[in-house]
Amino acid sequence: MNKYICEFVGTFALVFFGCATVLFMRSEVGLLGVAMAFGLSVIAMAYSIGPISGAHLNPAVSLGVFVSGRMKSGDLIGYVVAQCVGAIVASAVLYVIVEGKGGGYDVAANGFAQNGWSAYSATSAFLFEAVATFLFLVVILRATAEGGAGPLAGLAIGLTLVMIHLAGIAVSGSSVNPARSLGPALFAGGAALSQLWLYIVAPCLGAAAAGLALRVGVIGSGEPAPQPA
Amino acid sequence: MNKYICEFVGTFALVFFGCATVLFMRSEVGLLGVAMAFGLSVIAMAYSIGPISGAHLNPAVSLGVFVSGRMKSGDLIGYVVAQCVGAIVASAVLYVIVEGKGGGYDVAANGFAQNGWSAYSATSAFLFEAVATFLFLVVILRATAEGGAGPLAGLAIGLTLVMIHLAGIAVSGSSVNPARSLGPALFAGGAALSQLWLYIVAPCLGAAAAGLALRVGVIGSGEPAPQPA
Amino acid sequence: MNKYICEFVGTFALVFFGCATVLFMRSEVGLLGVAMAFGLSVIAMAYSIGPISGAHLNPAVSLGVFVSGRMKSGDLIGYVVAQCVGAIVASAVLYVIVEGKGGGYDVAANGFAQNGWSAYSATSAFLFEAVATFLFLVVILRATAEGGAGPLAGLAIGLTLVMIHLAGIAVSGSSVNPARSLGPALFAGGAALSQLWLYIVAPCLGAAAAGLALRVGVIGSGEPAPQPA
Amino acid sequence: MNKYICEFVGTFALVFFGCATVLFMRSEVGLLGVAMAFGLSVIAMAYSIGPISGAHLNPAVSLGVFVSGRMKSGDLIGYVVAQCVGAIVASAVLYVIVEGKGGGYDVAANGFAQNGWSAYSATSAFLFEAVATFLFLVVILRATAEGGAGPLAGLAIGLTLVMIHLAGIAVSGSSVNPARSLGPALFAGGAALSQLWLYIVAPCLGAAAAGLALRVGVIGSGEPAPQPA
Repeated sequence: MNKYICEFVGTFALVFFGCATVLFMRSEVGLLGVAMAFGLSVIAMAYSIGPISGAHLNPAVSLGVFVSGRMKSGDLIGYVVAQCVGAIVASAVLYVIVEGKGGGYDVAANGFAQNGWSAYSATSAFLFEAVATFLFLVVILRATAEGGAGPLAGLAIGLTLVMIHLAGIAVSGSSVNPARSLGPALFAGGAALSQLWLYIVAPCLGAAAAGLALRVGVIGSGEPAPQPA
Repeated sequence: MNKYICEFVGTFALVFFGCATVLFMRSEVGLLGVAMAFGLSVIAMAYSIGPISGAHLNPAVSLGVFVSGRMKSGDLIGYVVAQCVGAIVASAVLYVIVEGKGGGYDVAANGFAQNGWSAYSATSAFLFEAVATFLFLVVILRATAEGGAGPLAGLAIGLTLVMIHLAGIAVSGSSVNPARSLGPALFAGGAALSQLWLYIVAPCLGAAAAGLALRVGVIGSGEPAPQPA
Repeated sequence: MNKYICEFVGTFALVFFGCATVLFMRSEVGLLGVAMAFGLSVIAMAYSIGPISGAHLNPAVSLGVFVSGRMKSGDLIGYVVAQCVGAIVASAVLYVIVEGKGGGYDVAANGFAQNGWSAYSATSAFLFEAVATFLFLVVILRATAEGGAGPLAGLAIGLTLVMIHLAGIAVSGSSVNPARSLGPALFAGGAALSQLWLYIVAPCLGAAAAGLALRVGVIGSGEPAPQPA
Repeated sequence: MNKYICEFVGTFALVFFGCATVLFMRSEVGLLGVAMAFGLSVIAMAYSIGPISGAHLNPAVSLGVFVSGRMKSGDLIGYVVAQCVGAIVASAVLYVIVEGKGGGYDVAANGFAQNGWSAYSATSAFLFEAVATFLFLVVILRATAEGGAGPLAGLAIGLTLVMIHLAGIAVSGSSVNPARSLGPALFAGGAALSQLWLYIVAPCLGAAAAGLALRVGVIGSGEPAPQPA
């Protein structure tokens, strides 16, 4: 049970801090600050709940871990449910905070930190999400593998998420995480909901491909590192 | 005695560098720079005075550690006193420096790096401070627990404080630290003093809740890691 | 074979994320964001494919490693080919994404994240590239040497690349990497191709000089650290 | 001899990358980028030449180490000479590069990345330099002490220098390093030379005070960590 609570708390933290930065601080810290907030949330969680649940915080990550052969299907379902609930609850808390803005906050006009594409085509957004998630999972699966990054894995994985955001927010919003896209979309509605499919399909495709590549040994072995007892 | 001196020096450093960035450099490095300065001060102190006092630098952190069962009540009082004195002395030194500004510095007009809310409601500020401190303490208590982050704890905790600032300065000033709010408030006066209660109550509530959650084992065990001799 | 695939994937990731930040996000995250994206790609790869191929991601790095006596000439050729192909394929994927921009994307007018000099002379660009690559290789060869940085080498090397970009993008584009310059130049054409020679000659010169300095022991011994089995 | 060459190379790198960012990139990456460049140069050098010379890169650091009882007076002189020569040579190389700017570069009008004060008084600048160097040395001496930060010391020390720059560039230029101030001052001339005394006296005072505090054991013991053989 404990590990599902951890995935709930961890995904709550990722969506809470990442989307708070978009909602409250974007004009102050820019998308560089947004990129850092999302990535640092992974580092924060990797070194706190990581030893219990692995700190996936992301259904695509759990899928990639599952496809690579390191996770049971029953756990996969529990993880994904906990992650989605965490993302939704975090969005709800952010909704309460943003409603306290002087003069009110117009979600329809200003958005709710949702993912989406508009300046670039759906094909561009899909390609970026799929390729970025593929490389994200290569880092995750290799860094946490036997002979990988050891205790530095969480740092490397979080900094990878910073980089992914630096590279692609303008194209697709740099989600690489269906739960992160789901939570705010429920509150933003409109295009955020109608575009949600891409943020489920593309990351899962990229993650599954990476899981498979590691499983068959194309990019080194995918043997997991021994877990702490 | 040594550990109280360390908490004094450490909280001095946190307030000195963090608030200096607000006072002298905000127009140059923005709130991204401010967020980094506060977080990096924790990293600096964690790897210098950390092995002696634990580098709490924050009464809410000490309270959370106490509630989780890892600290004696006598130490709690000494830590909080040392932290508050450190924050006040750092504010005094900053006051001397800022007074040397050409043409003088008008604290009433320009503030003194104090915390406060204005764009968002007190409820929003309270909610952000409480939730952020809860998650901050989850990271601190788990990262420093047995089987936690080991030597990387200080890095993870400091980067968590960077993220907290990135997410919420616009809402509440992102204090999560009663001592950091107290020091500058004494020099800023006015609203900073009348709003000070929130920066004591909300962080302490969040920290105590996290301490309790760890103590009862909801988010993993709270067993402290073995200390260096 | 596996190590060549890793160099292909790693250099793909460096060019994909670094140049994506230039192409899609430069107006949002500035050259600070660009500097971070390039450096973080090295960290991401060092802790994932690093244990297999060393994560050179850069023909100049492979040359420096070769000159220092740590690599066989056959491997050098395979590495350089894999790196160049990875950089070209990444540029092709970025080309597809950028073509999906609403209203189209004019490579001739807006460039394609290529390296080049214009504000400073060719001599300035050459000097910066040579000196920066020399110091980059000093860090790489010493950090990965026996008694060097151990598991922290990848972090130190990636942050060094961040710093190199912070210092010199205005002068030369801060390539220090012939493959990174080659890939986008093929799509940008024009000056990017006619200036390409500098991004091959200057980094290789700096890298070879560092390799030699380590080999003769001027800056400590260049003994490689024992590799994971 | 090797360790003096290392201090030469290391201080060269600190001045070369830090001051290059000021000279070539300040309008692009701001003082946040400048702060990062100086701090990351310390990380780069700590994990490359660090195991040989300790990567002081700074006469005030060497003085603090000497006062704390960890260095012989003969070494102190050699270190300081090597550091000053490294800073001057780096400034000379930067001078050649900046002269290649199209339309020329007017050092008198635009400066040469020198330190100095103008917006704040000499007292403010002195106080900031002395206090910041004191805390910098507390971090350095404690992090590298027995039971300190171990392999993470270089990271913590470099990030501390980032923070020091974030906090005080507007006040004093955030030197905390007489060699870093000396090199560019020789090329900038004028006020940079007449103000140089402050960047020698204040950092050395702060550093010596920290060395003394550690020596007498006020802030933990100053026992150095065992060196690699």
